Amino acid sequence: MKTRAAVAMEAGKPLEIMDVNLDGPKAGEVLIEVKATGICHTDEFTRSGADPEGLFPSILGHEGAGVVLEVGEGVTSVAPGDHVIPLYTPECRECEYCLSGKTNLCQAIRATQGKGMMPDGTSRFSLDDGTVLHHYMGCSTFANHTVLPEIALAKVNKDAPFDKICYIGCGVTTGIGAVINTAKAEIGCRAIVFGLGGIGLNVIQGLRMAGADQIVGVDLNPEKRSMAERFGMTDFVNPRDVEGDLVAHLVELTGGGGDYTFDATGNVGVMRTALESAHKGWGESIIIGVAPAGAEISTRPFQLVTGRVWKGTAFGGAKGRTDVPKIVDWYMAGKIEIDPMITHTMPLEKINEGFDLMHEGKSIRAVVTF
Amino acid sequence: MKTRAAVAMEAGKPLEIMDVNLDGPKAGEVLIEVKATGICHTDEFTRSGADPEGLFPSILGHEGAGVVLEVGEGVTSVAPGDHVIPLYTPECRECEYCLSGKTNLCQAIRATQGKGMMPDGTSRFSLDDGTVLHHYMGCSTFANHTVLPEIALAKVNKDAPFDKICYIGCGVTTGIGAVINTAKAEIGCRAIVFGLGGIGLNVIQGLRMAGADQIVGVDLNPEKRSMAERFGMTDFVNPRDVEGDLVAHLVELTGGGGDYTFDATGNVGVMRTALESAHKGWGESIIIGVAPAGAEISTRPFQLVTGRVWKGTAFGGAKGRTDVPKIVDWYMAGKIEIDPMITHTMPLEKINEGFDLMHEGKSIRAVVTF
Repeated sequence: MKTRAAVAMEAGKPLEIMDVNLDGPKAGEVLIEVKATGICHTDEFTRSGADPEGLFPSILGHEGAGVVLEVGEGVTSVAPGDHVIPLYTPECRECEYCLSGKTNLCQAIRATQGKGMMPDGTSRFSLDDGTVLHHYMGCSTFANHTVLPEIALAKVNKDAPFDKICYIGCGVTTGIGAVINTAKAEIGCRAIVFGLGGIGLNVIQGLRMAGADQIVGVDLNPEKRSMAERFGMTDFVNPRDVEGDLVAHLVELTGGGGDYTFDATGNVGVMRTALESAHKGWGESIIIGVAPAGAEISTRPFQLVTGRVWKGTAFGGAKGRTDVPKIVDWYMAGKIEIDPMITHTMPLEKINEGFDLMHEGKSIRAVVTF
Repeated sequence: MKTRAAVAMEAGKPLEIMDVNLDGPKAGEVLIEVKATGICHTDEFTRSGADPEGLFPSILGHEGAGVVLEVGEGVTSVAPGDHVIPLYTPECRECEYCLSGKTNLCQAIRATQGKGMMPDGTSRFSLDDGTVLHHYMGCSTFANHTVLPEIALAKVNKDAPFDKICYIGCGVTTGIGAVINTAKAEIGCRAIVFGLGGIGLNVIQGLRMAGADQIVGVDLNPEKRSMAERFGMTDFVNPRDVEGDLVAHLVELTGGGGDYTFDATGNVGVMRTALESAHKGWGESIIIGVAPAGAEISTRPFQLVTGRVWKGTAFGGAKGRTDVPKIVDWYMAGKIEIDPMITHTMPLEKINEGFDLMHEGKSIRAVVTF
């Protein structure tokens, strides 16, 4: 079949909107119609050429929501008509990692996904001249139709609006999951969140849901304050307004440091500040942001020997097929908010404007609807 | 009273054996007769001048065992005749840290201990010319008699031999505690231990006690192998014998990386290797060794984002008054071994020879007996 897609032909170039060829689902695969997709910094990381593992040409996009149109042989967990969210971190429920109970990093299709291919090593996308288009993060949601492995689809509530829950496919789950799965924040804790973009806001609402007593937000941009307060931030700190040492200021503000601190910036210097502003004895610092290629974190080992713990999280530690449907239900029940974070929507033809809005800091999340 | 002590008069100089003045215990304090004391790398770190917080003149030593001679006003938990192990990490059972249930880093006397003084801000040790001698790590066990706060004494089994259980005052507890308190290693786990000195051997026997399936030891010195095997090491790796990448070799050897890895070297490069050879998804790496002043650890944040956890431990996460008596009982019951690690004993007059043996790598632990 043909479908409309935004194609990343080369690193650093705008996406090109065109019709592409899409083969139907093979065994274990599912064809879906994408109804909405968010534009995430990770897409931009790859589009720009900064991602050393980026493959071109490819169809980017990994934060989608849609409807199942057709299932391949052997698919049993979803059926045509089901509403689904694609998962860049699948959940096979059979590999050592899934069965460990200790991680969400399912390894079932990791190798082929990393090569931009479906599990059989081939792509479903191509151009008329025979050019093979790579899949991206196993999702490729910047297309009106896409094919995914069954294990990479979360079946969700049919009443949920696509243009909101697509954000659960990455940003919402990453932020909330970092709090509830990785930090396992408990009622009454104190936390510090570095970076009040989309991820940071979701960390904040995760902390609110977890019952944190103090939620400190740190950002260089004072305009981020009001939205963060809406999601539960109790204290705002602009490092530019702090005289002296930022760590010492945060430690004092939180009565000893954050029980949990989160980096949602991707800046390795901020990651260090986040660790060092965690509470002596037990504070845990969680890296969420994606750092530039080659960048390294560092600190004195004394910081760890005196009880701080340095962790990271991918997709918020969420097991997608199990956890994503629950988060959709939380949204539908009003336990979490998404609507105010979807600041812009646009048709596929204007997707490059969505990237511009992100660069300009004007959007929290821009969503393409089909 | 007068007591015989080894005094560190200046950084970098040998200890000087002399009689010093010792005041009796004030309220909340206890006078003990030291019966045995180990010589630890941390003593040498300070003696040598490498410790930026080192104070002189002082009486070093922090790994002792002895008998209570006299108690100050208000002391209720120990009485004359009790056998005790001094604790450089006290346990007041009243401060925020003790009550948190999350750390052993009691803060009750931290400030004065760091200044080389008893909790009232003064020293009990002096010379005849009025020179004040600093206490060291709150213990100063390189003296035949010393005074400690009640909260810094663990009361232990009277049948236990002083010249063995003194090692529980630091090395044994640090190594075993890193396994059971900090890593919380579980039956069937796989672990990698970097550095097969005294701490490393105790990590290994802690892992054996915890029921680890695989205990890989890593050391540049092949002579460390047989003793480590005696304590439970299942695989020995000499990095000099590994062709190619050490991390890749260790990951293959352990079927994916260590569930727990331990640095017992104090080398920040080894700390990185230890982290990166932890299992993707859930491996935890624990820093035990003390790094040189100013040295920093570093890695790519990707290592943490993909599920590895970086931790540290001080005194093995043990709450001294609670845990140290148990470890003494484990020794008496034969659950752990100490005797083969006490390779040398000597009188106080020969304490500098004990430091020489440590430098030459000839001792696992040299112990001074009184």
